[in-house]
Amino acid sequence: MTKLKPFLSDNAAPVHPNVWEAMRTADSADNPYDGDALSAQLDARFTDLFGRECAALWVATGTSANCLALGTLCQPHGGVVCHEEAHIEVDEGGAPGFYLHGAKLIHASGDGAKLTPAGIAAVIDPIRDDVHQVQAHAISITQASEYGRSYTPQELTALCDFAKTRGLGMHMDGARFANAAAFLGGSAAVAAGDVDSLAFGCIKNGAMSAEAVILFDPDRAAEVKYRRKRAGHLQCKGRYLAAQILAMLNGDLWLSNARHANAAAQEIAAGCGDRLMHAVEANELFVRLSGAERDALRSQDFAFYDWGDDAARFVTAWDTRAEDAAALGKAIASL
Amino acid sequence: MTKLKPFLSDNAAPVHPNVWEAMRTADSADNPYDGDALSAQLDARFTDLFGRECAALWVATGTSANCLALGTLCQPHGGVVCHEEAHIEVDEGGAPGFYLHGAKLIHASGDGAKLTPAGIAAVIDPIRDDVHQVQAHAISITQASEYGRSYTPQELTALCDFAKTRGLGMHMDGARFANAAAFLGGSAAVAAGDVDSLAFGCIKNGAMSAEAVILFDPDRAAEVKYRRKRAGHLQCKGRYLAAQILAMLNGDLWLSNARHANAAAQEIAAGCGDRLMHAVEANELFVRLSGAERDALRSQDFAFYDWGDDAARFVTAWDTRAEDAAALGKAIASL
Amino acid sequence: MTKLKPFLSDNAAPVHPNVWEAMRTADSADNPYDGDALSAQLDARFTDLFGRECAALWVATGTSANCLALGTLCQPHGGVVCHEEAHIEVDEGGAPGFYLHGAKLIHASGDGAKLTPAGIAAVIDPIRDDVHQVQAHAISITQASEYGRSYTPQELTALCDFAKTRGLGMHMDGARFANAAAFLGGSAAVAAGDVDSLAFGCIKNGAMSAEAVILFDPDRAAEVKYRRKRAGHLQCKGRYLAAQILAMLNGDLWLSNARHANAAAQEIAAGCGDRLMHAVEANELFVRLSGAERDALRSQDFAFYDWGDDAARFVTAWDTRAEDAAALGKAIASL
Amino acid sequence: MTKLKPFLSDNAAPVHPNVWEAMRTADSADNPYDGDALSAQLDARFTDLFGRECAALWVATGTSANCLALGTLCQPHGGVVCHEEAHIEVDEGGAPGFYLHGAKLIHASGDGAKLTPAGIAAVIDPIRDDVHQVQAHAISITQASEYGRSYTPQELTALCDFAKTRGLGMHMDGARFANAAAFLGGSAAVAAGDVDSLAFGCIKNGAMSAEAVILFDPDRAAEVKYRRKRAGHLQCKGRYLAAQILAMLNGDLWLSNARHANAAAQEIAAGCGDRLMHAVEANELFVRLSGAERDALRSQDFAFYDWGDDAARFVTAWDTRAEDAAALGKAIASL
Repeated sequence: MTKLKPFLSDNAAPVHPNVWEAMRTADSADNPYDGDALSAQLDARFTDLFGRECAALWVATGTSANCLALGTLCQPHGGVVCHEEAHIEVDEGGAPGFYLHGAKLIHASGDGAKLTPAGIAAVIDPIRDDVHQVQAHAISITQASEYGRSYTPQELTALCDFAKTRGLGMHMDGARFANAAAFLGGSAAVAAGDVDSLAFGCIKNGAMSAEAVILFDPDRAAEVKYRRKRAGHLQCKGRYLAAQILAMLNGDLWLSNARHANAAAQEIAAGCGDRLMHAVEANELFVRLSGAERDALRSQDFAFYDWGDDAARFVTAWDTRAEDAAALGKAIASL
Repeated sequence: MTKLKPFLSDNAAPVHPNVWEAMRTADSADNPYDGDALSAQLDARFTDLFGRECAALWVATGTSANCLALGTLCQPHGGVVCHEEAHIEVDEGGAPGFYLHGAKLIHASGDGAKLTPAGIAAVIDPIRDDVHQVQAHAISITQASEYGRSYTPQELTALCDFAKTRGLGMHMDGARFANAAAFLGGSAAVAAGDVDSLAFGCIKNGAMSAEAVILFDPDRAAEVKYRRKRAGHLQCKGRYLAAQILAMLNGDLWLSNARHANAAAQEIAAGCGDRLMHAVEANELFVRLSGAERDALRSQDFAFYDWGDDAARFVTAWDTRAEDAAALGKAIASL
Repeated sequence: MTKLKPFLSDNAAPVHPNVWEAMRTADSADNPYDGDALSAQLDARFTDLFGRECAALWVATGTSANCLALGTLCQPHGGVVCHEEAHIEVDEGGAPGFYLHGAKLIHASGDGAKLTPAGIAAVIDPIRDDVHQVQAHAISITQASEYGRSYTPQELTALCDFAKTRGLGMHMDGARFANAAAFLGGSAAVAAGDVDSLAFGCIKNGAMSAEAVILFDPDRAAEVKYRRKRAGHLQCKGRYLAAQILAMLNGDLWLSNARHANAAAQEIAAGCGDRLMHAVEANELFVRLSGAERDALRSQDFAFYDWGDDAARFVTAWDTRAEDAAALGKAIASL
Repeated sequence: MTKLKPFLSDNAAPVHPNVWEAMRTADSADNPYDGDALSAQLDARFTDLFGRECAALWVATGTSANCLALGTLCQPHGGVVCHEEAHIEVDEGGAPGFYLHGAKLIHASGDGAKLTPAGIAAVIDPIRDDVHQVQAHAISITQASEYGRSYTPQELTALCDFAKTRGLGMHMDGARFANAAAFLGGSAAVAAGDVDSLAFGCIKNGAMSAEAVILFDPDRAAEVKYRRKRAGHLQCKGRYLAAQILAMLNGDLWLSNARHANAAAQEIAAGCGDRLMHAVEANELFVRLSGAERDALRSQDFAFYDWGDDAARFVTAWDTRAEDAAALGKAIASL
């Protein structure tokens, strides 16, 4: 069987060797739940990473990470403004409705699945200030966005200032936070801006089953710990999750993995010219390709998803082979 | 003080004398909750009215009526398709999210706040059949619509057939069901089509605090009774609610009140010409009027709400004075 | 048919004439929802009644009043300590679970369905301070209790002090608050102690369909208003509810009605001797009576509920005829 | 540092080598979520194991496994009967309230944390068949129980028959199902009886982070899959969870691990005589020991939890050293 050149997604990539090693080391006996020595390091490690105090909790999925964080920012009778194509709106199976006890997602528009103060104002300003309409309590943005776009520091400042002015909490879905941070120069602090909470993604970037919920108001951690347990997300062998996250932080593996994926994406982008639907600012490419062109690529063993009728999505990962990326870029350029 | 000519809404109209009388009669001692002799009549009376078997339960608000009915048609992990301007979406304070335990409202478009099979298909066909996306479980339509439009029997048949084909439940928000039924010729059965549940509105039509939840699958009544109690809507002196509903049914007061309101609306419409934004098929008018024109009307003591910057909404009610309606029609025609 | 002497419950009693009159007066047009002139008076009237600042909102049932208030004191992941026979535990159809989004009722014991600091400590002290166990967030007591017992000022002080010390919110279910206040000398402030919230009952005491949610932290009122709407309890003709409550307050009708009912209860108690299972401190009597004795009473046209196999419950109301109460007392004494 | 002899719990035991190996093998690329080749085997493997058709889904915790299964058996307005000391009641942080949208846990009593038809009847028979009281929809039992007791086939038959007669669903919390099955002779079918759903525990028995939700009505699987995603429990690299479960099934590792732990427990039990508070029918021992006696054991490097003031709990695991168990048995016998 021919070996596929896989660009379907980063969400099924294998586990990075460093992560495997860290998990094996965690085998030695320790306290259950998050009482172990590894989990105990998370707050300090992330405080160091972001340069401001925060609490950090592991969970097994990005969906639960987002929802647990949003629960600290939005009451059940409130709403969370998100992009109409945000993952929490279209791809989390209604989890925000479950975790937020029926709170509403309020849909805003914006290029490249990115929100702007103007785009948010356009949907919340018309909300009458009365009990008949669900009021916005928080905003959720995705860094990098669902179209692989990264928020610049200036954009983040504008959004966070807007949120503060309006009294809204600010959450960041960071399923591909590492890719955005790598694109923006490598600073976690810069890529996170002044958000209140962040789902720091590890799974798409080389981990197996651990994301970190980052709360920049550490006083919220106690509440989230109760809600994590209540949601059935407090694993008794939590040390294996902490180990994964620490492995990602150690030696900045999170960044080097993301840089690798981003570089592969740029390699492909170089062959795409004006076929690109969105600037490539992380590890995803959305490329205009006819059905025949996609067939041609698939006949060369490239694996990827269609994106509607006239385009394709390519995702690179920490384990993308450089030669596969180069080959894909060339193949597209040759179409 | 000058007497206002009120066209703000039908939702604060006084209680009809027949309703008052029925309530007073209910004063005599009886069983609490819905164990009284009046509540016991509701199923049969509505079965008679609609010509098909149904269960009927009183509640105090349209919001709770809609939500209790929708709860029989949609699981917490599902969604309800409704018009993007539907009352349940924009004016019920997120109640569907609460009652349906986080289920999602899926927004469809359509002229005059009316849904069509095509409009619904446009939003549910793109939903991938996988667990990442919330699947539609039910449809909710409003009869008459939020813009005072009535669904014709043909339209209802098309919608109910569509719902059946797709395996979706079908609910009707009938806050102004009487006005639609009156417009359509006076048959409750015709105005309800083949829906699975109906919030039969009485409050805007002369009652004080009673709507009827109609379940055309009477087996659902037991579940709704538990959920009504659980929602704090089982009043211990329920006989006063049953009395209101029975008073509306007696002698077809529900129809005559609605006909009165509709006639007043037509009287006004006659003066509006092409200022009308929507056909007048119930008791609401949306009329293009500049700020100066609205000022002119208000200076003649007409009371009404602005509808955006260039229009006004007028609502008639069971107690609208015919001379006020005629005067308003003339005043608009004279602008 | 013989006229029954009704002691089944106070929850189906007719509406007091003053209340009817106030409701009729409310017929004149006004703003919808709680924007009317009557609703606007509630805060001030109750602030005056209790001698401390509070917000007051009408709802149609005691169940919703309790649950909306409790929602301000307990997070979804927390618990509310209540007596194991509390109405919210055994007779509200699981409404607290619904309104509090799955929060837990923690059952404590106590004579006469009354809680004490020791009784509460006995159930919350063993709760481990970890995320595996639901922590208590609030306490709910019933004044008068489910067995017709009233909390004395000393008992209330002890409980409220205990709650403060433990960081717990304190709610009072006052379905029969008036009866307790009347028993305790007539002061609402004394009967409420220092609780954080109170469901001020009117329905069992002569109203039709209005209870008042009292929030002694008025800043909570905005949240409760959103949640009231969300629960489908914001009636558009709310003025008829406000009218009922104001009628109860006017001329202290709430107290005189309760005094009447309490006096009738004492009249009966006088005939019960040591048959009484609980001191009679409101308008309910729990009386040891064999099956034969109950038959004998029923043959004399007294209507009441069995209370288990060897007892009966008698409830008096604002409209209990003095001669019926006297007759019942005598009949029991003669058994 | 002296090496501890650990009997604290089985919930932090290391991962079994076979499980590690299976996980590593799963590294090779495959479909995300549960679309992989390993997850696809689960239904058939468990159908084979239980000898009746079932669906099997992985989740990361016992709490989520129990709650997802219970959600198929109990509506939000219903209740689940469980032992007053059941894990779902006292140790899951209120998760059932969250997952079941406010449904109630109804507490029954029984020796050794085991339920009986009589014990269940004692709490559900007094529930009035009206909407004011939460009705039981399901029963949940724990196999082995929270006190390490196993339900015999006869007891299971009696319970399942009772459930059917009463129209109640029947769930089994099998956090230590393997230990019960091993004790009962090694048949999964015998240990599960005729329950409707089972949380098949792997984590305490050698896995890292995977339990299996078993639905003996496979038609329920689709609903549970939606709810698993909605609860944030659908891991994108689900193949690593499936791998763990399959490793447990392969060569009956689940049984041999449990037999090892059970044998160690029996070794200890042999030294306990009448200090035992409960028959040892799985891998937990509850032993009467004074404070001084516990001190003496700890001074010999035995690690365990106090159980109240006069007892201790010892738990064995798949990795308990036989010599440690023997030493503990002797040490207790020598006290």
